[in-house]
Amino acid sequence: MSQRKNILILGSTGNLGRQSLDILKSLPEYRVVGLTTNDNVFELQKQIKIFKPDFVVIADQEAGSRFKAGEHRVYIGEEWLSKAIEREKIDCVFNALSGVVGIESTLAAIRARKQILMANKESLVAAGEIIMKEAKRCGVEILPVDSEHSAIFQCLIGEEIEEVDEIILTCSGGYRGGEKNPQIDSLLKKSKWKMGRKITVDSATLMNKGLEVIEAQVLFGLLAKKIEVVIHPEAIVHSMVRFKDGSIKAQLGPTDMRLPILYALAYPERKGVPGKELSFSNLILNFKKPNIKKFPCLIFAYQAAKIGGTMPAVLVAADEIAVEYYLKNKIRLQDVPKIIKKLWMGTGINTGISSIPA
Amino acid sequence: MSQRKNILILGSTGNLGRQSLDILKSLPEYRVVGLTTNDNVFELQKQIKIFKPDFVVIADQEAGSRFKAGEHRVYIGEEWLSKAIEREKIDCVFNALSGVVGIESTLAAIRARKQILMANKESLVAAGEIIMKEAKRCGVEILPVDSEHSAIFQCLIGEEIEEVDEIILTCSGGYRGGEKNPQIDSLLKKSKWKMGRKITVDSATLMNKGLEVIEAQVLFGLLAKKIEVVIHPEAIVHSMVRFKDGSIKAQLGPTDMRLPILYALAYPERKGVPGKELSFSNLILNFKKPNIKKFPCLIFAYQAAKIGGTMPAVLVAADEIAVEYYLKNKIRLQDVPKIIKKLWMGTGINTGISSIPA
Repeated sequence: MSQRKNILILGSTGNLGRQSLDILKSLPEYRVVGLTTNDNVFELQKQIKIFKPDFVVIADQEAGSRFKAGEHRVYIGEEWLSKAIEREKIDCVFNALSGVVGIESTLAAIRARKQILMANKESLVAAGEIIMKEAKRCGVEILPVDSEHSAIFQCLIGEEIEEVDEIILTCSGGYRGGEKNPQIDSLLKKSKWKMGRKITVDSATLMNKGLEVIEAQVLFGLLAKKIEVVIHPEAIVHSMVRFKDGSIKAQLGPTDMRLPILYALAYPERKGVPGKELSFSNLILNFKKPNIKKFPCLIFAYQAAKIGGTMPAVLVAADEIAVEYYLKNKIRLQDVPKIIKKLWMGTGINTGISSIPA
Repeated sequence: MSQRKNILILGSTGNLGRQSLDILKSLPEYRVVGLTTNDNVFELQKQIKIFKPDFVVIADQEAGSRFKAGEHRVYIGEEWLSKAIEREKIDCVFNALSGVVGIESTLAAIRARKQILMANKESLVAAGEIIMKEAKRCGVEILPVDSEHSAIFQCLIGEEIEEVDEIILTCSGGYRGGEKNPQIDSLLKKSKWKMGRKITVDSATLMNKGLEVIEAQVLFGLLAKKIEVVIHPEAIVHSMVRFKDGSIKAQLGPTDMRLPILYALAYPERKGVPGKELSFSNLILNFKKPNIKKFPCLIFAYQAAKIGGTMPAVLVAADEIAVEYYLKNKIRLQDVPKIIKKLWMGTGINTGISSIPA
């Protein structure tokens, strides 16, 4: 068993972290050596029992003080999300952190020459240039876990990026329900994908798709104008690549995040894991252009991608704040884009969040 | 210009031959050194004026005797469809012959170590085992030109055939018009693809899709039971591959045979040629299972593929005869499968075609 790969799951108690652990149960070639949580010590204890890691990180000091250690090293404090990568024996880092807190860990993993499975889109959006430069310098490959970017990655296998005409990102379409002020529980229930709260709100406003445009620009080195967003309500086609000869390759599959997670973990091989197969008996796939008037967040993202520099980072921060306001019931879903715009474009950006109307 | 590739177009006056010449006009890296026709000397003369080949072959003796030679070598007689390959300076053979007459030429091209672009499906179906064995022995790659097989080939680029779960061949659906006895002109008008007469009839009976199942079995080395046919009326998704991790790759594009022709000619590169782009504004794609009761030819093909040996060759021959009867107005379209069955399964197989009722 000396060939087993030591994997650290950053953000193991979150939605994607849990799904990755679910897949790792069927992949004996991996050994889960590290788990991390912000403050969910209850879930962490359950995971420790099953996976018996060498170490755990609890980012939140207060939660860490409540934690009862077992036969594993315990690191308490956010700084250990990166420092543990330097100290521990790890081959591979699955970054399922949420938000820009993942940037430091990503850079630490790159500099320590670990293989990176990337599910933390905010860090790629906010610090894409720095991350990709470091990855290139250190010869580290970053494998995307987002279903869309995994689809694009799969469509590009064996192809040349110079021969790509455009990337076509599919999108299930944002919030279309009739409620005047939909609550988070309603959004979670309607979502095609099982996801966390923040990304479910981002999907409802199409900010998630906007961030994915920037993420694709970063990961595949194409300008945002070469990345098209297409509405595809069935969420079966996970994304496509159009080549310069007019040929298009698409990647399809059941709407299940465990598939792109499995792909990244098994890469460059493909491994079968029991699950529901996509059937083509009476399947209908619809595609149409997005309504950018109704979903201005998409425009913000294209603008941020075009301007570059710190603009994507500021957009990510503005979005994190606006979504938090919505989740705390201080603003309605329809106000999220307005608050983002105000934070992002207005003077509010540098003066802190306290001045933002709720 | 010493790096130009010398290409021979077998069957240059047929539908696919003409479309390949149309594409070759925009590919200066190729020099068309040879053209062949069965008896269409009128079209051949036009092509000679444009492409100035080194030689031409006219398979039909009578047509050959009417032909006025210019500044090129002329070979008359069917045997020259293979002998010219041995004698002339050729790098690459585009086999757009129709029917089993293409087998000899394919084998000659393989033995002479030429690159082969394969649009002659009947030879792969009827003599697949021999052809692939010779291709392997001689280290010759056979590039598919059929839109479905080109799609599968593209989906397999960079992937391992061992990781394929199944091939999904799409099919626009066979004849669905309301006419009791549709004539060939009506079939040609309704076809999604611009094709020759024989293949248009084969598409109407789904025998074309059946032959493609056998062709896929031959080209990709998968058992026919691992090849699924799915009805897709829009003919936008040209075929798909399902991998063992549940991920599916599809190749899409406008319904234009020039695209797979271009792909094969430009391979392993991709070259842009002006043409209509596939748009995803208000695109709807439908998929459903084929009605095998209505289209028994599909069953014949699966049976032939399973039994192997000479059964596929006999099926191809039976189909050629039945289609000819239909084109000569001796039988109705709905009788084509019945005649094929009789020829293929009955005693008529070995006693010649004269005993077949018209």
